[in-house]
Amino acid sequence: MKEGEVQAAVETMARQARAAALKLSQLSTEKKNAILLAMAAGLRAATAEIVEANAKDIAAGEEKGLGKAMLDRLRLDEARVDAIAGGIEQVAALPDPVGEVMEKWKRPNGMRLEQVRVPIGTIGIIFESRPNVTSDAAVLCFKTGNATILRGGSEAIHSNRAIAKALQEAGAKEGLPDHAIQLVPFTDRSSVTALCQMDQWLDVIIPRGGKGLIETVVAQARMPVIKHYDGICHVYVDATADLDMAVSLVVNSKTQKPGVCNALETLLVHSEVAGSFLPVVADALKAKGVELRGCEHTQVQIDCLPATEEDWGTEYLDLILSIKVVDSLEDAVSHINTHGSHHTDCIVTADENRAELFLNSVDSACVFHNVSTRFADGEEFGFGAEIGISTEKLHARGPMGLRELTSYQYRVRGEGQIRG
Amino acid sequence: MKEGEVQAAVETMARQARAAALKLSQLSTEKKNAILLAMAAGLRAATAEIVEANAKDIAAGEEKGLGKAMLDRLRLDEARVDAIAGGIEQVAALPDPVGEVMEKWKRPNGMRLEQVRVPIGTIGIIFESRPNVTSDAAVLCFKTGNATILRGGSEAIHSNRAIAKALQEAGAKEGLPDHAIQLVPFTDRSSVTALCQMDQWLDVIIPRGGKGLIETVVAQARMPVIKHYDGICHVYVDATADLDMAVSLVVNSKTQKPGVCNALETLLVHSEVAGSFLPVVADALKAKGVELRGCEHTQVQIDCLPATEEDWGTEYLDLILSIKVVDSLEDAVSHINTHGSHHTDCIVTADENRAELFLNSVDSACVFHNVSTRFADGEEFGFGAEIGISTEKLHARGPMGLRELTSYQYRVRGEGQIRG
Repeated sequence: MKEGEVQAAVETMARQARAAALKLSQLSTEKKNAILLAMAAGLRAATAEIVEANAKDIAAGEEKGLGKAMLDRLRLDEARVDAIAGGIEQVAALPDPVGEVMEKWKRPNGMRLEQVRVPIGTIGIIFESRPNVTSDAAVLCFKTGNATILRGGSEAIHSNRAIAKALQEAGAKEGLPDHAIQLVPFTDRSSVTALCQMDQWLDVIIPRGGKGLIETVVAQARMPVIKHYDGICHVYVDATADLDMAVSLVVNSKTQKPGVCNALETLLVHSEVAGSFLPVVADALKAKGVELRGCEHTQVQIDCLPATEEDWGTEYLDLILSIKVVDSLEDAVSHINTHGSHHTDCIVTADENRAELFLNSVDSACVFHNVSTRFADGEEFGFGAEIGISTEKLHARGPMGLRELTSYQYRVRGEGQIRG
Repeated sequence: MKEGEVQAAVETMARQARAAALKLSQLSTEKKNAILLAMAAGLRAATAEIVEANAKDIAAGEEKGLGKAMLDRLRLDEARVDAIAGGIEQVAALPDPVGEVMEKWKRPNGMRLEQVRVPIGTIGIIFESRPNVTSDAAVLCFKTGNATILRGGSEAIHSNRAIAKALQEAGAKEGLPDHAIQLVPFTDRSSVTALCQMDQWLDVIIPRGGKGLIETVVAQARMPVIKHYDGICHVYVDATADLDMAVSLVVNSKTQKPGVCNALETLLVHSEVAGSFLPVVADALKAKGVELRGCEHTQVQIDCLPATEEDWGTEYLDLILSIKVVDSLEDAVSHINTHGSHHTDCIVTADENRAELFLNSVDSACVFHNVSTRFADGEEFGFGAEIGISTEKLHARGPMGLRELTSYQYRVRGEGQIRG
């Protein structure tokens, strides 16, 4: 397609999304849930078509020479389609934040004010290879009364089209407004640029994918962007830590699922316990196949590779851990605030006061005391579902559930009050 | 200055702001209030220097041929400096939102979670002619533990420098961290561009000024921007309205202070009451010097200029009002959602059900029933002070008080919980 055609097609979708948003904001919770259940059923009924479409993507991916891990993320079978449908049913069962009165007060002149949760309006989701995002993101946005435009990666285009079609058709029968869920049906790169310019029609863009994609969107977008950048997560083992607990937390944070943003990347150890703690934790980590890269002090205590300056700012997403010995809690905090990514950081200590000092000083979305970094997650926090873990400081920080997909408005009621 | 020098100087300031932010986040409320009171006293003590510096700006402005209204906005005298200092004292007296536990819950595995308000971090304020913004914005950001970089307009540069110097010197004596409040000391245009690129160090930019300034910042900024766009506010007089109340609300909304964003710009009238209401309200408005521009139906009822399509999307900020007759509440809502600026819109009606329908359907930051649009204001809402009225849907919508200058973080406490 020519760039002008892409631009025009995307603008049409964006205008349609805005029109749909006004209708979506008027749907009752019961109606939205009925539509969600219909979409789940429709998705299950379309399993054969979806798996067939997915086979085209897999064949194209194999031809293109995609890696095994990438192909696995791309692959859909009956069980995975069923899991996606189950996810929709879960979202239907969650409480609806729209309409919630957040605050309520009265002014001396008699005016009654309410701050009420309302949908954001229109949300653009730009994502990469996993086709399940088509459904997961669309239904979370729909539950909160938002219209979505989904723009997936080219490697999953057939799967994405099949999933979107199943959702749209099943939803429409139950009253889903037209254009409430739209998928950009082509994969021209210029469609990302075009979406980024639709600030009149799109209220926010959420990019889900690698750093390159996020950087592109940040540089081009005129509307707010909710970024999900990397997680360079730390565990700091204080001099006052229960060292058995520390070993357990470090091993779990690093190895329970190393390829995700809330996995541990850098271990900080107070110098007073370096001699007793490092050999024990090193053995436990090596037994799990973790490669260790230590600072000079660490290298004295254990057998490991030398860490370079670059290691302190690296998200490995792999069985690699950098280790640094620090002389104080303050040094640990300073290292985290300087080198971390403000995602999730944990202190292990038996001393409540030192824990509070850490929690108060670390500038991260999630600050933990004596729990694994792997708990930085919407489901684990009890949000029921998450659209991701935001690295923003504005609007939504950390795990994002349904509430973070809403805005609010002030409703003021009076009896003719005028300003003097 | 050369562009590279501007870039380097702004980057140094931005890095310094980040360092200051970490110190600011650790200050107690008591300490912050003591610093605020010291700054207020310091500002009053520096009145002579500030008024002298302002005289240079006024002289330069007269030479440049600035209009009378502009010169008046720029002018500082003893009373105005005193009012700015009084504003600082007011902010000192407000409750500090930082540290507030917004929510608190426990998970089945025993983890205890808290969502706690924390400062955003670093805030860039880019503003135009009014020198009082230097103090007003800086102290609101400081009260909430944020570091600020202020970039004012060239026409107020001497005044801005004198005010910033007074705040910094008086604050420093009481313990204000270095670089907590910084003013860009030069007025090169490229400093705006440079600030917009400092997303590593600046968490948000708030532009305060005309549409041109905001557009520039939106197009260039890599970090979130909290915009304060225009207010095309509506009053809709329903068929069920108390018409005396409607006249009073329309006149107050339009004429009490026509040059501000919460003033009325378009009046919508239900066709059933057009004949009885329009002549009365037209007389009342004309008596206040308001020029009326009506749709065809309106022109039948009253003597007025014809409104063009452009009028429906115009923020006059002046004694001009556009008037349209509509056939239903739904048509009024549709007109507002299409032509308005999602700022503040009001229905006048004696029917509660119709009021609720309106409040539920209008996609604006503030939706009012039977009160003047002029109440869309942080002070009038009871926020004590406001940094402006946001037209964003994310993070802060409508009047922005201290709370909207904060972020949050999740603090999780446990006893060694790991993820299975």
